[in-house]
Amino acid sequence: MNAYKGHISDKTKFFETDEPFICELGGTLPSLCIAYRTWGNLNERRDNVVLICHALTGSADADGWWDGMFSKGGAFDETSDFIICSNVLGSCYGTTGPLSANPLTGRHYGPDFPPITIRDMVHAQRRLLASLGIDKVKLAVGASLGGMQVLEWGFLYPEVVDALMPMGASGRHSAWCIAQSEAQRQAIYADRDWNFGWYSEDLPPAKGLAAARMMAMCTYRSFENFQTRFGREIQKGSTFKAESYLHHQGRKLVERFDANTYVILTKAMDNHDLARGRGVYEEVLASMKLPVEILSIYSDVLYPREEQEELARYMPNSRLLYLHEPYGHDAFLIDVETVSRMVREFLDR
Amino acid sequence: MNAYKGHISDKTKFFETDEPFICELGGTLPSLCIAYRTWGNLNERRDNVVLICHALTGSADADGWWDGMFSKGGAFDETSDFIICSNVLGSCYGTTGPLSANPLTGRHYGPDFPPITIRDMVHAQRRLLASLGIDKVKLAVGASLGGMQVLEWGFLYPEVVDALMPMGASGRHSAWCIAQSEAQRQAIYADRDWNFGWYSEDLPPAKGLAAARMMAMCTYRSFENFQTRFGREIQKGSTFKAESYLHHQGRKLVERFDANTYVILTKAMDNHDLARGRGVYEEVLASMKLPVEILSIYSDVLYPREEQEELARYMPNSRLLYLHEPYGHDAFLIDVETVSRMVREFLDR
Repeated sequence: MNAYKGHISDKTKFFETDEPFICELGGTLPSLCIAYRTWGNLNERRDNVVLICHALTGSADADGWWDGMFSKGGAFDETSDFIICSNVLGSCYGTTGPLSANPLTGRHYGPDFPPITIRDMVHAQRRLLASLGIDKVKLAVGASLGGMQVLEWGFLYPEVVDALMPMGASGRHSAWCIAQSEAQRQAIYADRDWNFGWYSEDLPPAKGLAAARMMAMCTYRSFENFQTRFGREIQKGSTFKAESYLHHQGRKLVERFDANTYVILTKAMDNHDLARGRGVYEEVLASMKLPVEILSIYSDVLYPREEQEELARYMPNSRLLYLHEPYGHDAFLIDVETVSRMVREFLDR
Repeated sequence: MNAYKGHISDKTKFFETDEPFICELGGTLPSLCIAYRTWGNLNERRDNVVLICHALTGSADADGWWDGMFSKGGAFDETSDFIICSNVLGSCYGTTGPLSANPLTGRHYGPDFPPITIRDMVHAQRRLLASLGIDKVKLAVGASLGGMQVLEWGFLYPEVVDALMPMGASGRHSAWCIAQSEAQRQAIYADRDWNFGWYSEDLPPAKGLAAARMMAMCTYRSFENFQTRFGREIQKGSTFKAESYLHHQGRKLVERFDANTYVILTKAMDNHDLARGRGVYEEVLASMKLPVEILSIYSDVLYPREEQEELARYMPNSRLLYLHEPYGHDAFLIDVETVSRMVREFLDR
């Protein structure tokens, strides 16, 4: 079982299959395990399913990383809905990923884990739902990498999913996002303990991964957010509070996340492109008939609002909402009360 | 002589003194060498001096990194002005810095180089000018770290400098900038060859420094600039053009710049605060009586325009100009024709 240093809830369930999983870019996984959580009960008509797709370093434990969203009358209401969240393919919280044993070698996959795409993640989730006898999802919702999965759900399984709510995401990864990802990966590769991905569990490329996370944290927040929280205040000695905050964020991620996983998942994000193999980008967007509620984070410097405005402009059955607080990309995790209300209102329509 | 792998012009001159240099934060340099270049001739009244202050990885060779600015009728006109640019204290292009020999140990300073500030850089430049018999500078001009020096010139030596033109700079380094700097330094520290700064010349922390530069390049440009230039185009294999561009930028910097120097200079930038020891920030700005032409780069994500607008709001004898092209922070190096004209117009008034 592949759960990074035990960082998953004991309520996690596992779907396992020996049916090979053929990845979009050519690799094959001989078997597949998907870690997932559920809340509430599936009703008789099996039509009360809400699917949560998580972001880069998330897990199936949506009631942990998105806890404010779970409440009666809120976004995720287990008194009325059956809510599912599964750990994405390639991650390190229970689903098959670089930390899993490679049946062909007996060793963990590590850097040999095949390159995957957002579409692979969605196909894996579809298998899980099928195993649970679910053929209808009333809403797929998620932010960032989660939002990319939500959009791909709409194109890959429009007969399954009734409505989409992507947040702080784009229809294709921009050059800007690709560049940020690559700079972060290069920090990992620079680490003395990286060893081309063949590091030992006891000696991971901690400094490189921490540096990558520190960079990422800058892109997840905003100038104003940093300024308001830290300004030029000193934490201790000659260390600025802004630095201490980053060090803390770096350490926290290193304790709970695997470096190969970080590389695999950021590359999957870089490959994100709704138009890949489907035609001209704008026409692909225009072909989406499902209702799509697009949440744009006004202060997002990573997936700027122009990207969600473009989605909304071309998707005929879409509506654009904004989160106006100046938190940056992470607003979906911070301004939870507003986000929860927006999801509930969309579910109720 | 401290010139990283010979990357300086053979026209470089050197000012050397054995008078100790006491740094603002407490360190002492037993001797000082300043590399500088000049263009044109000092007139009899010694009042035709234009001082160029360079940015983080710049050198005294302003006719190289800012070449479009040098022309008859342009910003730097050697037919009328005497133009000086010196390599900043702590750098690796000829001026005393971490690559210089520490007279106390015989070894190079490396990570033992004392922490320095923007004010130290300006005091060192003042010594150079004094050695040249110059007591009047008609304009100090520079961008980014150069702009910070320009502002400090106005506060430290208002009797010497007649006018200031800072570009793409702030009056104090923001939490956002501090965070970006620190994430970059952490990438250097993660490198297997960093060795707490005691790396050998033949085996520098190249990957870490390259990763730092890649991060920095993202902050020097803009979403739109990356998107327009690279989009989702593939360079070769599965490498995006945006990635190739960063790799190229990383390699280029590693060939020409020293990692300890990168650390020392970014820390000096983080310490930048016009108000340090002078009082309340807004009141300090308001006390500046010199004419200040503030150039703001509209698309700058690192030193956003709000920072220059704040400078202009409080500095009584200031004027705010914008560069409107969407290049991001680096616009001062790209939109040179406009910048050159703006400098010339200010000089002529």
